[in-house]
Amino acid sequence: MLERYPDGMHGAIAAGLAEHLPDAEIRTATLADAEQGLPDSLLESTDVLLWWGHVAHDQVDDALVERVKQRVLAGMGLLVLHSGHFSKIFISLMGTTCSLVWRNAGEREVVWTVAPGHPIAEGVPQPIVIEQQEMYGEHFDIPTPDELVFISSFAGGEVFRSGVTYRRGRGRVFYFSPGDEAYPVYHHPDVRRVLANAARWAMPPAVQSLPGVTNPESGWYLP
Amino acid sequence: MLERYPDGMHGAIAAGLAEHLPDAEIRTATLADAEQGLPDSLLESTDVLLWWGHVAHDQVDDALVERVKQRVLAGMGLLVLHSGHFSKIFISLMGTTCSLVWRNAGEREVVWTVAPGHPIAEGVPQPIVIEQQEMYGEHFDIPTPDELVFISSFAGGEVFRSGVTYRRGRGRVFYFSPGDEAYPVYHHPDVRRVLANAARWAMPPAVQSLPGVTNPESGWYLP
Amino acid sequence: MLERYPDGMHGAIAAGLAEHLPDAEIRTATLADAEQGLPDSLLESTDVLLWWGHVAHDQVDDALVERVKQRVLAGMGLLVLHSGHFSKIFISLMGTTCSLVWRNAGEREVVWTVAPGHPIAEGVPQPIVIEQQEMYGEHFDIPTPDELVFISSFAGGEVFRSGVTYRRGRGRVFYFSPGDEAYPVYHHPDVRRVLANAARWAMPPAVQSLPGVTNPESGWYLP
Amino acid sequence: MLERYPDGMHGAIAAGLAEHLPDAEIRTATLADAEQGLPDSLLESTDVLLWWGHVAHDQVDDALVERVKQRVLAGMGLLVLHSGHFSKIFISLMGTTCSLVWRNAGEREVVWTVAPGHPIAEGVPQPIVIEQQEMYGEHFDIPTPDELVFISSFAGGEVFRSGVTYRRGRGRVFYFSPGDEAYPVYHHPDVRRVLANAARWAMPPAVQSLPGVTNPESGWYLP
Repeated sequence: MLERYPDGMHGAIAAGLAEHLPDAEIRTATLADAEQGLPDSLLESTDVLLWWGHVAHDQVDDALVERVKQRVLAGMGLLVLHSGHFSKIFISLMGTTCSLVWRNAGEREVVWTVAPGHPIAEGVPQPIVIEQQEMYGEHFDIPTPDELVFISSFAGGEVFRSGVTYRRGRGRVFYFSPGDEAYPVYHHPDVRRVLANAARWAMPPAVQSLPGVTNPESGWYLP
Repeated sequence: MLERYPDGMHGAIAAGLAEHLPDAEIRTATLADAEQGLPDSLLESTDVLLWWGHVAHDQVDDALVERVKQRVLAGMGLLVLHSGHFSKIFISLMGTTCSLVWRNAGEREVVWTVAPGHPIAEGVPQPIVIEQQEMYGEHFDIPTPDELVFISSFAGGEVFRSGVTYRRGRGRVFYFSPGDEAYPVYHHPDVRRVLANAARWAMPPAVQSLPGVTNPESGWYLP
Repeated sequence: MLERYPDGMHGAIAAGLAEHLPDAEIRTATLADAEQGLPDSLLESTDVLLWWGHVAHDQVDDALVERVKQRVLAGMGLLVLHSGHFSKIFISLMGTTCSLVWRNAGEREVVWTVAPGHPIAEGVPQPIVIEQQEMYGEHFDIPTPDELVFISSFAGGEVFRSGVTYRRGRGRVFYFSPGDEAYPVYHHPDVRRVLANAARWAMPPAVQSLPGVTNPESGWYLP
Repeated sequence: MLERYPDGMHGAIAAGLAEHLPDAEIRTATLADAEQGLPDSLLESTDVLLWWGHVAHDQVDDALVERVKQRVLAGMGLLVLHSGHFSKIFISLMGTTCSLVWRNAGEREVVWTVAPGHPIAEGVPQPIVIEQQEMYGEHFDIPTPDELVFISSFAGGEVFRSGVTYRRGRGRVFYFSPGDEAYPVYHHPDVRRVLANAARWAMPPAVQSLPGVTNPESGWYLP
């Protein structure tokens, strides 16, 4: 992985965002950092959080997951990448197992846009060809997406809903499956464009606040 | 409440189901029962679970909530009633706060069918009129429903998505807001019909099993 | 085609339905028949209509298309098959071009269920393998389906939303792409099961009537 | 109507857009104009078309409706207003009857946002109060919306899905029911904001083109 991602996967992902979003302030963090990389001050000042994780999902503190979730529900955007489908934060926002079929055989993945007008697909070629990838296949146990943007096929014949959007509270969530530590997927120009588009799409609303309960009197809204 | 529901709310709900589903085996349980009313043996043999709760949501054991969730994801139907919107199980399946606007002023609720062909609306008059009800209003912080079946208006002018469906894993979930301990809503013939229709609609698939991960070889499905 | 479908494609489709729906009254009709096969009396007594067509879409009378559409909106089920995506009735119900990508090269099609709990997928293996098929690929210009049931991949790497449902008026519509005059697809046992499941799923509601306009007085629904 | 809308309803609608979209080029046209107000040159250079109509829907040429539809499918935005639910263009894009319940009794309409993060709801108060309006009620015979943005209640207790979005081809469609010739609804500041938001939301994609059929060779997308 070091040859493929000399700056880490987070470094490659950040570089891809920087290419397309020159005015964005991009910060990276890893599980090994203090406070698992996400102290309150950082989380509070984040507009869109990208989450990649793999074998260490269980090491992420439940309290941190809860804080991230509150931020999403209040309006922060969240992009969940590849094996992040099994992250605590994604499972918690989906309410399902998020299980899937997989095979690591370096197969070609072909990513097809099925929502051509969607901002996340803007400028993306039809199809994106990724020469070598881990296969993720159906059935993918997720709720019906709000929008299905991409469907992938793999050399072995499997298909996967590889780009899906959800609203949760005031926040926007996008899951994008291409991306793996064993292949240089985050150097792929089209994948980088998708992530940059998605970051823009997931920007929070002007006012961020956790949806809450109110108990108004009858006619409260009348002049 | 005792005059209104001499057999408890669960008794009234069960009686309503029995009217419409004469062949169904209907069992009731309350938080005060042993194992909070839902021992494994009961849960495992349940096709569709109706869940009503109010001020005691926090007393429900997290482990029980998790067991119920696994059952839903494996295929058990779940009907969440009224103040059950704040139950741990509903919040956990939705991934949102499930917060809403409320007012307890005995207002008339009028329930309109917006999906006339839906099995849950079969035989239900347009509209259902409930003379006195607690008001539940928008914004209701839930994921976009798979199907929006009913919308209610209240005398005070508020509206509410009062009947919504979701798929989670292999299970079907229906939330229906009419129903309160302070009003005889579960004696209302149309409300009873909706709940019976929903119970039928939420029946599990022939094979119940928790969605899982598989790792097949390339071409595994070929002869 | 005569060797492959000695009883016509309609004969093969009807035989498949008969296998799974022994109590159904199944009738067939072709464009060459009197009144293009669909006199009023037949149309009025039909619960679910299956529509296959190819090069002769333009020959179907506009008035007949309009009558079929009124029946669907009033509650009749409609299953649109394969090249029927370009039928006047399907285009008229969708409101889009229904265009797609195609290639007739006898490629293997693999049909994956993405909505395992859906009645149309009941008893259907994961995946369905069709050894030789015409390729239909994305982008398929249809409205966002109410439910996405099947996604296909083809040997050439293309994908297609091959099983999609819609509600239109009081009627249910299912489009299913597998099926071609050049391949024995309608003899395939899994394809036959899908069509039979879909016919059952698309059965009309108890009361069929065209949605209409009403102009009631205020409070008309109160006792 | 002349006192209420001295510059016509189109004048009031245009003035509202101009308030919020100072850089937009806004043009108006009526059925009485040459070529029914929409010569090709105008239609081709329009990004977003707002359509209001009432008793004269039948007078609109079918050929013009078809040209407008082709423009929408190629990417032009379309906002359909109030009684435009019965316009040929809306019915043609929906595929349903678009029928509804109505009553003209000057009732208060209260418009509730149910998709708070949606760009069309940005800056819109919760709720919008319209003192006098024609009532439009359910059941509204439309396809399931891609997004349900607003739900209205009326003094008489009826509800209506008053703000709904659809994608058709490459174009975006928004139907918004508030607005009538008998009430000064298009002078209402919140209604004007909704229409301006919607115009921005419905802007065409960078490349406008009618979705078409292609017939590529196997592997055409490989290097």
